[in-house]
Amino acid sequence: MHILIIGAAGMVGRKLTAALVKSGQLRGQAISRLTLADVIAADKPAGFTGAVETLATDLSAPGTAVTLAAKRADVIFHLAAIVSGEAEADFDKGYRINMDGTRYLLEAIRQEGIKAGSYLPRLVFTSSIGVFGAPFPEAIADDFFLTPLTSYGTQKAICELLLNDYSRKGFVDGVGIRLPTITVRPGKPNLAASGFFSNILREPLAGLEAVLPVSKDVRHWFASPRAAVGFLIHAAEMDSSALGWRRTLSAPGLSATVGEEIEALRRVAGDKVVSLIRDEPNPTIIKIVDGWPRNFDTKRARALGFKAESTMDEIIKIHIEDELGGKIGG
Amino acid sequence: MHILIIGAAGMVGRKLTAALVKSGQLRGQAISRLTLADVIAADKPAGFTGAVETLATDLSAPGTAVTLAAKRADVIFHLAAIVSGEAEADFDKGYRINMDGTRYLLEAIRQEGIKAGSYLPRLVFTSSIGVFGAPFPEAIADDFFLTPLTSYGTQKAICELLLNDYSRKGFVDGVGIRLPTITVRPGKPNLAASGFFSNILREPLAGLEAVLPVSKDVRHWFASPRAAVGFLIHAAEMDSSALGWRRTLSAPGLSATVGEEIEALRRVAGDKVVSLIRDEPNPTIIKIVDGWPRNFDTKRARALGFKAESTMDEIIKIHIEDELGGKIGG
Repeated sequence: MHILIIGAAGMVGRKLTAALVKSGQLRGQAISRLTLADVIAADKPAGFTGAVETLATDLSAPGTAVTLAAKRADVIFHLAAIVSGEAEADFDKGYRINMDGTRYLLEAIRQEGIKAGSYLPRLVFTSSIGVFGAPFPEAIADDFFLTPLTSYGTQKAICELLLNDYSRKGFVDGVGIRLPTITVRPGKPNLAASGFFSNILREPLAGLEAVLPVSKDVRHWFASPRAAVGFLIHAAEMDSSALGWRRTLSAPGLSATVGEEIEALRRVAGDKVVSLIRDEPNPTIIKIVDGWPRNFDTKRARALGFKAESTMDEIIKIHIEDELGGKIGG
Repeated sequence: MHILIIGAAGMVGRKLTAALVKSGQLRGQAISRLTLADVIAADKPAGFTGAVETLATDLSAPGTAVTLAAKRADVIFHLAAIVSGEAEADFDKGYRINMDGTRYLLEAIRQEGIKAGSYLPRLVFTSSIGVFGAPFPEAIADDFFLTPLTSYGTQKAICELLLNDYSRKGFVDGVGIRLPTITVRPGKPNLAASGFFSNILREPLAGLEAVLPVSKDVRHWFASPRAAVGFLIHAAEMDSSALGWRRTLSAPGLSATVGEEIEALRRVAGDKVVSLIRDEPNPTIIKIVDGWPRNFDTKRARALGFKAESTMDEIIKIHIEDELGGKIGG
């Protein structure tokens, strides 16, 4: 089993690599080879006994997709993208990386099959809840229409359509997953508008102050990094014929308010930790967050065996286990 | 008022050109200039006193879109595409013409604005009911999701997403229209799977035999060529801000069965004409047609002033008026 991860140096890419190395198998077959591609070279995973190749390469650059497809991996995880804010600020870069990069990959896989003989890898693609735009129903169902209100969401929606069509034509075996907002996101606070959803949990758990820029009744859609990795592995292992030609799924998640995040933090870590959260309303962030999805009805993904956390307490405990070695406090 | 029509030599393009020349104005402004582009040169319209330029050019070829955008037309109608059957048979050609061609045009308009100063033309784009795929609800509502089951439908759906995003970013003022199946399509019978919907009306009205390959209870979604031209002109004239960032509309039409087509033909033209229709079931066509939309609920387009025929009798009479000089029989 040869696995290629594109976007391997990112947060989800690193956790996925670690999970695959730990399990040692995918689809019941031993993982003998890993190819890790990203714009910066990913670290070689510790404890892996198979062949590893790390490539510092840009999927949107000429030739990269062809080189990657020629490696004929059995399973390809395509996680590479620039984020929403950057795609909105740099229109050309967003289309080049998020749309053209994915199209090059699909086309390179097709051409590899034409030139070098039958090639039909499972391609797991990470899409986004950004393919949806307000106004929303109370919970976004599997047949809600794609109405992106950002260039990022448009690019992801286009990739979903291409993934369907290339799969339908038998050029690739694609499965797309729309990830919830990953919480608790490890690392330092960043400038993403969604950053506070993680910051208000992660920073206090490390004994640091965190700023809450919105009101406590803001509702959003969450899954842990561990759940996200689980979605991707399940997407690689599932029977894709169950998807028909609607190849992208909204992943399950947890709909919770900021207030519910804080009360879960109190239950798990106590009042003192919660007291490190400081209210500081930010009108810009309030406005952005107002246009985001709050809740989903992910019947289809759940029926197909995808699983997420059902409480915020669980999400916080996963962070404490996976990132803090089980220990709370700075 | 300078109008550019891309795809001007096709059936809808020719009728649109004639209607614009006849009216002499668009948005209350006299039409002073017409630029007619297509892969084969369109005929110069008779009776037009303004400047006319006809261009034999391929929108998907390098430089074409830049040349067309540099003409800085006030209104652009983009009707150029290869049809569903051809796009399904020739994957590369379909993506090149139906997707890349449209993207080149959008990007050339954006670049024209950047390079030569503010340019925000109204761009009217013809999409298709092929963006939808079975299973369908009884009537497809304005918020039904895009699930194309053909490469053609995928390409049109991607263009709709690009049109939204370029409009939202202020690079173009786009309006997309998903046309119903145009009936009665003038000209000779063609090999399109949908051809019989027109053939069974047009051929008998001309005193010729026609083959009916499906059962009489097959239901489909129709509008006359005259209505289609009306949609395009209304799309050019309407207040596009009423669309928000959902820039493409399913046009109104008439949902009717083949049996209803035949009974309307009987009312308009009599039993002798109807007797020229010969049943000859074709399993291939029956299967294709089974996956097509049957009915739409086009609340949004109707509220915005788009109008279609409400009876099949009306559709047949329009054909007799516009194509047969009011006369039935060969």
